[in-house]
Amino acid sequence: MPEFLTLKPPGEALAILNHNLEFNPQSENIRTEDSLGRVLFSSVRAEIPIPGFRRSTVDGFAVRAGDTYGASESLPAYLPLVGEVPMGAAPDFVLEAGTCAVIHTGGMLPQGADAVMMIEYTQQASEKEVELLRAVAVGENVLEIGEDVQQGEQVIPAGTLIRPAEIGGLMALGITEVEVARKPLVGILSSGDEVIHPSEDLSPGKVRDINSYTLQALVRQAGGLPQLFGVAPDTHRDLAELFAKAHQTCDLVVVTAGSSASVRDLTAIVIDELGEPGVLVHGVNVRPGKPTILGVCDGKPVIGLPGNPVSALVIAGLFVTPTIKRMLGRQERQDIPVIEAVLAVNLSSQSGREEWVAVSLEGGEDGLVASPVFGKSNLIFTLVRGEGLVHIPADATGLAAGSRVKVYLI
Amino acid sequence: MPEFLTLKPPGEALAILNHNLEFNPQSENIRTEDSLGRVLFSSVRAEIPIPGFRRSTVDGFAVRAGDTYGASESLPAYLPLVGEVPMGAAPDFVLEAGTCAVIHTGGMLPQGADAVMMIEYTQQASEKEVELLRAVAVGENVLEIGEDVQQGEQVIPAGTLIRPAEIGGLMALGITEVEVARKPLVGILSSGDEVIHPSEDLSPGKVRDINSYTLQALVRQAGGLPQLFGVAPDTHRDLAELFAKAHQTCDLVVVTAGSSASVRDLTAIVIDELGEPGVLVHGVNVRPGKPTILGVCDGKPVIGLPGNPVSALVIAGLFVTPTIKRMLGRQERQDIPVIEAVLAVNLSSQSGREEWVAVSLEGGEDGLVASPVFGKSNLIFTLVRGEGLVHIPADATGLAAGSRVKVYLI
Repeated sequence: MPEFLTLKPPGEALAILNHNLEFNPQSENIRTEDSLGRVLFSSVRAEIPIPGFRRSTVDGFAVRAGDTYGASESLPAYLPLVGEVPMGAAPDFVLEAGTCAVIHTGGMLPQGADAVMMIEYTQQASEKEVELLRAVAVGENVLEIGEDVQQGEQVIPAGTLIRPAEIGGLMALGITEVEVARKPLVGILSSGDEVIHPSEDLSPGKVRDINSYTLQALVRQAGGLPQLFGVAPDTHRDLAELFAKAHQTCDLVVVTAGSSASVRDLTAIVIDELGEPGVLVHGVNVRPGKPTILGVCDGKPVIGLPGNPVSALVIAGLFVTPTIKRMLGRQERQDIPVIEAVLAVNLSSQSGREEWVAVSLEGGEDGLVASPVFGKSNLIFTLVRGEGLVHIPADATGLAAGSRVKVYLI
Repeated sequence: MPEFLTLKPPGEALAILNHNLEFNPQSENIRTEDSLGRVLFSSVRAEIPIPGFRRSTVDGFAVRAGDTYGASESLPAYLPLVGEVPMGAAPDFVLEAGTCAVIHTGGMLPQGADAVMMIEYTQQASEKEVELLRAVAVGENVLEIGEDVQQGEQVIPAGTLIRPAEIGGLMALGITEVEVARKPLVGILSSGDEVIHPSEDLSPGKVRDINSYTLQALVRQAGGLPQLFGVAPDTHRDLAELFAKAHQTCDLVVVTAGSSASVRDLTAIVIDELGEPGVLVHGVNVRPGKPTILGVCDGKPVIGLPGNPVSALVIAGLFVTPTIKRMLGRQERQDIPVIEAVLAVNLSSQSGREEWVAVSLEGGEDGLVASPVFGKSNLIFTLVRGEGLVHIPADATGLAAGSRVKVYLI
């Protein structure tokens, strides 16, 4: 098996793929309220300052701070009440020195006022007069113009994943339509004489197609638009035909080949024939997932995953997800949600190969406890039972029980 | 402000809401391949064992283990080659003692065979004979029937959030249609004379409606189906009318009221009039978000959030998200993706009140470093700039720089 002579570490393998690809994200305009989970295409600048007017942050009385200096519970200040600031409109009066006006949270400071006295520190002496039991400083309880965002400031950089908070920020700026990265179309195909559609009845020797559907879901999670091309029989002609069809219409092609060595070789041959430069990496130094193929054919990435469902899903997380994110121009805040946990048992691993172990999580006295979900790597239910994956680095021979590990949530 | 005399800790407040609600999730059937992110309604049992036949996990030769005992590189065993197992079909021969047959990864073991010898430890002496350089034990390199899942075993419990792995598991069992919890319809309304639609032009004193859209996105993330009812002016009649409309058609009503005390009181009054028992909690001991209202009106939960956008989003995460998840019957594996980070600076907090502080994250030498995103709590961009929230418990007076903190990703 000559392809295993050149096993690459996963990071290096991904770098080779990236180095051979030009990423040219396309964009489309959609309604901001529909943009959750999309990726911002162009940086957004604030055309206006937020807030756009001086606002009160409390319920109370708009004042000139100078008029409150020295006021205390034992020696209150008294100010005549000259009006009330309406919500949603500019006050129709100027606050003269030595006066105050009712203002609500979010209300606009009248001209002349420079602070707000909280209602808690006042007593209304009469309808026309307010007793102030404290002093306030200039600017106290006031949001200044542009205190949230300055006019012209870049507020959301291109490549940002749009969360509820970003939708709020865009709406605050009046941006109701937003330019986002178009979702890359990801063709998914399988091969294997033994693989049948999940709705078909099993007969001895057959297994149902799992990978098309786990990968479809993973592609959706990563922000791509999956398209299923079905299962090709293990012949050169069938596989090449299906590959060509997917490669023609899609931005990225992902194949899960039958798991025998001969079929893996067939996949590599077909990728090499599909376009230049063809196969770039054949074999990755990670468990599970050694027989991974990364290639570029006429400018489009092609990723060959191991046939067994657990490996396919784990390896797709290492190569397909980042490739889709890169095609989206997505800038990571935090690549994968990661949590820390204490390992319940010793985990051994072969030195020189990095390893991902499915674990389940349970609350313990000292935080979360991660227990490996045992099972051979081609059992899909080891992942169903697992909450996350623990990473054992290539230079480790294992991890000791009780050690703190990072768990990458699935 | 009498309502603040009875401030409840958030956990207790949520418990009161839950105690006053009956959760009766409804279900619907959808295609399994469309079920990503949905919640499984009924537990799934395996009708069949997986795998359904004894499979090889490697490429090599099917053997009887006894025929290999004692074989080594210096003293190989020789077995006549009697056939090849086809992929996707049952072998049409029985493996007799003292013979072997070609088998590929995933191939079905012929009757008579009880182990597989990896091709790496063989040499094909001739077309008709294989040289074995090692011994194998019974069951070696073989997946037994039911080793992944036993027939009749419960494989996915009701209430499970469906991830790519669950989709794979369902497909492996031939379950192409799945019963999931119907998404609860969540009515979202705002009030405030100062609040305008985001597409409208700002005039002094006005602010754009942010909360309807951040909450719409949050509801989608939590698994609900949001429906926007718009913004009511701050009058009893307008607010009551809009509330009644939302309450009639939706399973849960969320309102963000104007932030002044008078409007908060109005919201509580309207909720009390809407149905029994009305307001259950008025005021929660958490920052940001003190003026939170939790109620139940004729069996439907009603949640009043603070008007300022940051508080509304944070508090919605504490009350709206768990309520939706509960309505879905969702069983948590891990409630919120949480990561650990080292705090960059001292964070002070008022003892006796739990606090959530928006932080940004950066990679440091010793893992992630969390730095607070400063800004008053009603600045939406403090959340846009933040990656997560740090929780300061009620009994702490703050957190010291350098301490390890949990960051709840937004």
